[in-house]
Amino acid sequence: MTDDRVGVLPAVESTATDIAEMRIRGAATIADAAAEALATQAHQTQAEGPEAFREDLRAAAQTLYETRPTAVSLPNALRYVLRGMTGETLAELQASTIARAEEFQRDLAQAQTKLGEIGANRLRDGDVVMTHCHSTDALACVEAALEDGKEIEAIVKETRPRKQGHIAARQLREWGVPVTLIVDNAARRYLDRTDHVLVGADSIAADGSVVNKIGTSGLAVTARERGVAVMVAAQTIKLHPDTMTGHTVEIEMRDETEVVSKAERAEIAGDIDEELRVENPAFDVTPPRHVDAIVTERGQFPPESIVVLMRELFGGSTGEPWEP
Amino acid sequence: MTDDRVGVLPAVESTATDIAEMRIRGAATIADAAAEALATQAHQTQAEGPEAFREDLRAAAQTLYETRPTAVSLPNALRYVLRGMTGETLAELQASTIARAEEFQRDLAQAQTKLGEIGANRLRDGDVVMTHCHSTDALACVEAALEDGKEIEAIVKETRPRKQGHIAARQLREWGVPVTLIVDNAARRYLDRTDHVLVGADSIAADGSVVNKIGTSGLAVTARERGVAVMVAAQTIKLHPDTMTGHTVEIEMRDETEVVSKAERAEIAGDIDEELRVENPAFDVTPPRHVDAIVTERGQFPPESIVVLMRELFGGSTGEPWEP
Amino acid sequence: MTDDRVGVLPAVESTATDIAEMRIRGAATIADAAAEALATQAHQTQAEGPEAFREDLRAAAQTLYETRPTAVSLPNALRYVLRGMTGETLAELQASTIARAEEFQRDLAQAQTKLGEIGANRLRDGDVVMTHCHSTDALACVEAALEDGKEIEAIVKETRPRKQGHIAARQLREWGVPVTLIVDNAARRYLDRTDHVLVGADSIAADGSVVNKIGTSGLAVTARERGVAVMVAAQTIKLHPDTMTGHTVEIEMRDETEVVSKAERAEIAGDIDEELRVENPAFDVTPPRHVDAIVTERGQFPPESIVVLMRELFGGSTGEPWEP
Amino acid sequence: MTDDRVGVLPAVESTATDIAEMRIRGAATIADAAAEALATQAHQTQAEGPEAFREDLRAAAQTLYETRPTAVSLPNALRYVLRGMTGETLAELQASTIARAEEFQRDLAQAQTKLGEIGANRLRDGDVVMTHCHSTDALACVEAALEDGKEIEAIVKETRPRKQGHIAARQLREWGVPVTLIVDNAARRYLDRTDHVLVGADSIAADGSVVNKIGTSGLAVTARERGVAVMVAAQTIKLHPDTMTGHTVEIEMRDETEVVSKAERAEIAGDIDEELRVENPAFDVTPPRHVDAIVTERGQFPPESIVVLMRELFGGSTGEPWEP
Amino acid sequence: MTDDRVGVLPAVESTATDIAEMRIRGAATIADAAAEALATQAHQTQAEGPEAFREDLRAAAQTLYETRPTAVSLPNALRYVLRGMTGETLAELQASTIARAEEFQRDLAQAQTKLGEIGANRLRDGDVVMTHCHSTDALACVEAALEDGKEIEAIVKETRPRKQGHIAARQLREWGVPVTLIVDNAARRYLDRTDHVLVGADSIAADGSVVNKIGTSGLAVTARERGVAVMVAAQTIKLHPDTMTGHTVEIEMRDETEVVSKAERAEIAGDIDEELRVENPAFDVTPPRHVDAIVTERGQFPPESIVVLMRELFGGSTGEPWEP
Amino acid sequence: MTDDRVGVLPAVESTATDIAEMRIRGAATIADAAAEALATQAHQTQAEGPEAFREDLRAAAQTLYETRPTAVSLPNALRYVLRGMTGETLAELQASTIARAEEFQRDLAQAQTKLGEIGANRLRDGDVVMTHCHSTDALACVEAALEDGKEIEAIVKETRPRKQGHIAARQLREWGVPVTLIVDNAARRYLDRTDHVLVGADSIAADGSVVNKIGTSGLAVTARERGVAVMVAAQTIKLHPDTMTGHTVEIEMRDETEVVSKAERAEIAGDIDEELRVENPAFDVTPPRHVDAIVTERGQFPPESIVVLMRELFGGSTGEPWEP
Repeated sequence: MTDDRVGVLPAVESTATDIAEMRIRGAATIADAAAEALATQAHQTQAEGPEAFREDLRAAAQTLYETRPTAVSLPNALRYVLRGMTGETLAELQASTIARAEEFQRDLAQAQTKLGEIGANRLRDGDVVMTHCHSTDALACVEAALEDGKEIEAIVKETRPRKQGHIAARQLREWGVPVTLIVDNAARRYLDRTDHVLVGADSIAADGSVVNKIGTSGLAVTARERGVAVMVAAQTIKLHPDTMTGHTVEIEMRDETEVVSKAERAEIAGDIDEELRVENPAFDVTPPRHVDAIVTERGQFPPESIVVLMRELFGGSTGEPWEP
Repeated sequence: MTDDRVGVLPAVESTATDIAEMRIRGAATIADAAAEALATQAHQTQAEGPEAFREDLRAAAQTLYETRPTAVSLPNALRYVLRGMTGETLAELQASTIARAEEFQRDLAQAQTKLGEIGANRLRDGDVVMTHCHSTDALACVEAALEDGKEIEAIVKETRPRKQGHIAARQLREWGVPVTLIVDNAARRYLDRTDHVLVGADSIAADGSVVNKIGTSGLAVTARERGVAVMVAAQTIKLHPDTMTGHTVEIEMRDETEVVSKAERAEIAGDIDEELRVENPAFDVTPPRHVDAIVTERGQFPPESIVVLMRELFGGSTGEPWEP
Repeated sequence: MTDDRVGVLPAVESTATDIAEMRIRGAATIADAAAEALATQAHQTQAEGPEAFREDLRAAAQTLYETRPTAVSLPNALRYVLRGMTGETLAELQASTIARAEEFQRDLAQAQTKLGEIGANRLRDGDVVMTHCHSTDALACVEAALEDGKEIEAIVKETRPRKQGHIAARQLREWGVPVTLIVDNAARRYLDRTDHVLVGADSIAADGSVVNKIGTSGLAVTARERGVAVMVAAQTIKLHPDTMTGHTVEIEMRDETEVVSKAERAEIAGDIDEELRVENPAFDVTPPRHVDAIVTERGQFPPESIVVLMRELFGGSTGEPWEP
Repeated sequence: MTDDRVGVLPAVESTATDIAEMRIRGAATIADAAAEALATQAHQTQAEGPEAFREDLRAAAQTLYETRPTAVSLPNALRYVLRGMTGETLAELQASTIARAEEFQRDLAQAQTKLGEIGANRLRDGDVVMTHCHSTDALACVEAALEDGKEIEAIVKETRPRKQGHIAARQLREWGVPVTLIVDNAARRYLDRTDHVLVGADSIAADGSVVNKIGTSGLAVTARERGVAVMVAAQTIKLHPDTMTGHTVEIEMRDETEVVSKAERAEIAGDIDEELRVENPAFDVTPPRHVDAIVTERGQFPPESIVVLMRELFGGSTGEPWEP
Repeated sequence: MTDDRVGVLPAVESTATDIAEMRIRGAATIADAAAEALATQAHQTQAEGPEAFREDLRAAAQTLYETRPTAVSLPNALRYVLRGMTGETLAELQASTIARAEEFQRDLAQAQTKLGEIGANRLRDGDVVMTHCHSTDALACVEAALEDGKEIEAIVKETRPRKQGHIAARQLREWGVPVTLIVDNAARRYLDRTDHVLVGADSIAADGSVVNKIGTSGLAVTARERGVAVMVAAQTIKLHPDTMTGHTVEIEMRDETEVVSKAERAEIAGDIDEELRVENPAFDVTPPRHVDAIVTERGQFPPESIVVLMRELFGGSTGEPWEP
Repeated sequence: MTDDRVGVLPAVESTATDIAEMRIRGAATIADAAAEALATQAHQTQAEGPEAFREDLRAAAQTLYETRPTAVSLPNALRYVLRGMTGETLAELQASTIARAEEFQRDLAQAQTKLGEIGANRLRDGDVVMTHCHSTDALACVEAALEDGKEIEAIVKETRPRKQGHIAARQLREWGVPVTLIVDNAARRYLDRTDHVLVGADSIAADGSVVNKIGTSGLAVTARERGVAVMVAAQTIKLHPDTMTGHTVEIEMRDETEVVSKAERAEIAGDIDEELRVENPAFDVTPPRHVDAIVTERGQFPPESIVVLMRELFGGSTGEPWEP
């Protein structure tokens, strides 16, 4: 992180610090805080003219951005708000920026509900969905379908290594959804009685690829082979801005102890064995041709055209998030 | 099981009992014992003429068969030996039957080694294999390749729910093979640096389908999509005779506690919840179009023509194993 | 339908009634009448200020919409016109709305001709097209190609159950196009000498799916397998607005007598037999991956990006057609 | 047909005439009559030595063959019987030939029943089959499954132009099978709830292709795309011997009035219009890669290895059916 | 070309002549000159009012366009500039047009560099790319990756008939990239160790098809089958405007002597042999489903949504380039 | 080669030397000479009893085999003859061996003609074939089709690097076949008017893979994508015996000067540049799923069942060619 920038308010710095130190975390929470911080910067600005105001806002955005440059939702929030900073006078700039930030926050607050309603429309009464990992966006679609009076049944993959499928199963059972829990290896067998594969997304790339919990891409390939539709539920803050400029999404490699305990490792290969590697990638990349629709709070899209929504919301610029 | 049959020797009955009571178990062990029993029946026969001899042998076969009619290797052993019972005189019949049983046993004893040598020929120096579950037939191919001086690297899927991948990994590490252990969900990502998917088989059907540990079929589909060859290592005793007559292989459903502990179940859905089903199929079925070659001790075959080998070894009859 | 709304003119109510009672019918005719009604409402408005004008227009739109909420072209016409209702003063609002309605009507009147010219450009001299059902949009492409001096040959599927292929064949013969009429079952065989599958659409969904006469999806799948391009001709009024919010298109089930006469049914199953169901869906859904291009009067699009045109013309709102 | 051959018995000539004049017709009936005729020739032979016997039998076979050289079952019957004509003496030759003919006839009489039992084994309780055309071999599988106590449901394609689906539907209803009758165009939509496509075959080629009622190949392609297995039921007399030598199966073009009545034609294109062709091929060719299994009375086979059964039963000779 | 148009300046006429007579050639050079000419027309206009200015500009655009109506970049330059001609007064129109032309020229000058940076982001350290033909856009991606410090290896197809692969290989060797040169026939074999197929484009169509050097489409099909990603590098001036209206791109047929020398022809077929045709198409058409991403200076896009960028930059009009 | 073996006749040694020193070369010529040599060994044997005869014959086979152990046809000839060495007495052994060798030689002499007739049966009047490389087996199919009175047209790929397409084109023109010569890169474009891809084979593997001139596998993949059938013409001496035991076929890497001249290399990369590799593999491997039929002189087979023919002709033994 660079030195404090002239004109950036302490409140913004404080938010930046909270993000950097993970006191503020989670895609939606970060995005909300960043928009809030820009609104504060606009509201309490000490700039003496339009040009200074714009500079300060950009400096605030840069400060916020640099806390966690790989977080997907953060630059999206910044880009969205800055794109709404319009007007000729200081007052106009203040008003437009604050309004834009509020719009972003309001949309964000409703996003999962709206997305759920849209996704629910793809589900028919009696459908069976297969889930992978635990995604609140994906489950929001099921919840909305239940509220529409549809009966939905779920086949839940346990999702090794961390078995987030258990969380999904518990949520679905709370809603009264009949659940069949299976190991990930059993997916192809159960696709024969599945109507929709329904997953969330960690992020979505400009080329239409879906980055999601490891195992998603194999599931999608198999679903295509079995003639089962694949539906990805993802709020627009998951659209990955860097990928418009070709960047690939860095896949996090997690600790091996999620996969094997120390005791298991010792049993396999003794105490120290560098030639037994245990690799534990958190995510994989599903190409768009294996996905039927991405459901967002702005409507559903084929993955191949999600880049258009990305550009509409966050701009088509190939520059930095704070650049005009 | 029916009453003891006239003419069937106590030694044969004893073997039958041992098979029935699982004192003799494992595909190869059962097959060996069954052939041995028929040889004993032939050797110690009390039949007074050729016709009686044949009847006794068939009765012995039926007695053995009925102990575990779903075991794949058992009818194969019986059919193989009975098909070699030829000759006009009692002496000729005895000799031919004993010789045939010995041939079967000798071939069986060498089968894994031979199969390994054949499978090894498909592997080139420096190749990376991905394994699923633990199959001694599959690993025999790697072992033979190592003996040929080839360097082989392995990506080992852990194979939930029972994690037999740990056993495979330990064996491979003992042989000095560099191993990368991954969860099953990570398979598609690691196929990009895999040369061969290498698996065993629980049984192989006349329509070329491969019945193997749950997860095999999804792996094979994904391997095809990634352009990776799929190789199945299976001794001919795994060729499922009933499938020639269209029978599908019954898939065993195993206990749910392999998938979730009682505590996990309780956490997901409380004490009693019939609408949380945990299903745990042991195997799945891979269609032949997703498999490149089946390697047996009799050579390699495209899965679509394995039925020919099945008929050559065990006859094309659509009748019972002991019928002429 | 709700009670008459305050401010909605009798002329608008009258159009609404005509639509509801099917005196006005057909996608283009309904759309034209709806735009005309909004223009009338704008022209003869009794609103006393901008706000009231807008309210009245929205009320008029709602009144019209509720006559046939499942007609695709109706909400499109309403959305298109209302999106052009701009200005600060009453006079500006009147003028802009009327101009927008006229623009819609003018574009609509020319749409099939323009679409035909665009579609014709995809056809080369000597090409063979295979048609399914009878679509004036699809045939407009052939007509324009003929006017360009190209020789076109047609393979016409009869299109059970209603044999609209006969109508298509007659039209094509009137234009002098050599026609080979075949039963639907013969399609794959004749694809070997087909250059383009050319069909219309009942409606097109935001996920790129094409809803068209039953049999289209199987034809498209087979065309892909045979290496034949699939071209859908559809005016933009066929873009289904509800599908942006995930709604699936309800498939009409038609009377069984289109499929079997009473006599045929009696011969099959006697007088009353509830276990002989005759199902007669009017349409099916072709996924975008089996379609090469959708040709509209606004240009051609890959099906995966038609949602962008949909949003451009009719707005990306997830609300009701009359909502701002 | 050539002149009567020396040594060919009048009874054989008489059978030949009956076949030629279609008094004997149908694949199984022809095959049975041909085998019978060869048995008669062997039984009543006037040959004075082994060589003459063989010559007479071959002449009889040639005489029978030339009556309808395109019938598939006829050369199969001849080849099968002649391949069993063994022995050194006249008596041995007679006995072996007669026995072989009887074997052929006995197998033939049981073929459909056996085939049905084998095919039924592929069906599970509760399965839904989709049928095309009317095939007694295919329905025999359903019948045997019903006899095994399985519940089977059928989706029956009407099968234009001749609507043989009505016959299939009637038969299935007689057996109490719930039937959903659909037009051919609706197949893809109903594949989503189909477990097996189940069809017969007009003939099967050495390259694994299945020649069957027009529409089969498109159905098979679509079934593969939807992940539905395709099962062909065909007695071995349908294995087309000429195709071993690369011959393609000539597809019969039937009368156009099966497709359009004279009145329909007139309405489409007036009285005489040579540029309105109505083409009505009776069959099409499904490549083996779209078929999962061919079920015969000798067991089931992947289509790619059916040629082996063909050679086993009828010989691998590339010569004429009567040649040694 | 039509007669000189009133109001079109001699400087514009002169540029038009230079383009027509190929003194100005190459996609980028033509586009730059056309934009420059319109700026000149705007700067030195003799129009006396806004309407006349607009007419003159359109006349200038038409004059320029008609010099080479099939050049892809020319109408793009004209459309882009004319779309920026806004304002009410003559001065405003002048200023906006000149600014727009300058913007176009500036963007064009930076396009390859920007595109290279974006494309480079798709490449990881250690990746192997396979190239076809010689494309400076494609190589710019490699160059930028090298500048980012990544190690890249190249497999270069020689690209018959003109062997432009040699030029690519030379360029890559100058940059120190290890090169493996292969004949085109060897591509599938070497795809097994390729990470990206990387090609340029002659032009890109609205339906997402990529028109590029003959051989590209076969390479893309094979890359998909082998699981290798395909990346097309193309500046936006390659987006083919006519294809929005369905026009197919005319494929140039080049001289046969590029394929066979006269001596080779004589050896094959003697002096004159009209039945030995040598056909030499310069380009082929790759459907979007075989391409993973199109990289432009405006970001990367799935081929299915490139039409949106095309419309954004050059307008969605279906009229002539100079029409409003 | 080992020392001369006791009992092996000088005439056999002489043939062995001729094969070793390439005076006898070409698959058919080598096979014929090897069979001839075994016949000579049998005819002039100095063995004093059956056992010694068999030993000598095996020694002769081993001597011949070791001259060129990688030649495919050589072990096939040896295996075929030795499999016919039957009988109890010396005289019987002599007679059977000589007869078997003569049978092999006679079949071999007729193989190409028979294969041509069979392959021709797959071609219909008016068909267009696309050829790759120059294969006399493949062209024999065209020749036989012409003799059957069919009109055949050919699209001939030049087949870099050695342009054997020119030889094929010349042969086809001599027969009067209209030829279109294209570069290999143009294949996909011309597949749209091709009915059959028709190629030969260098060897065929037990897993159904076809080893043929580099470029075949890419052509086959593309043909499948375009819906064009692929036909391989290969005599049975091309069936590769080692592949039954899993051996992969070693692909010959040929001299780089076939691909680039020294001058071309210098122009690309200067005098010495080890990082410019030019790789020139002679063959590639086409998996069976991309081939529709293999045509041999024994009939046509799907590639997946060719292993059965291989075993029928040359035995299923996994041992050395001379072993019993």
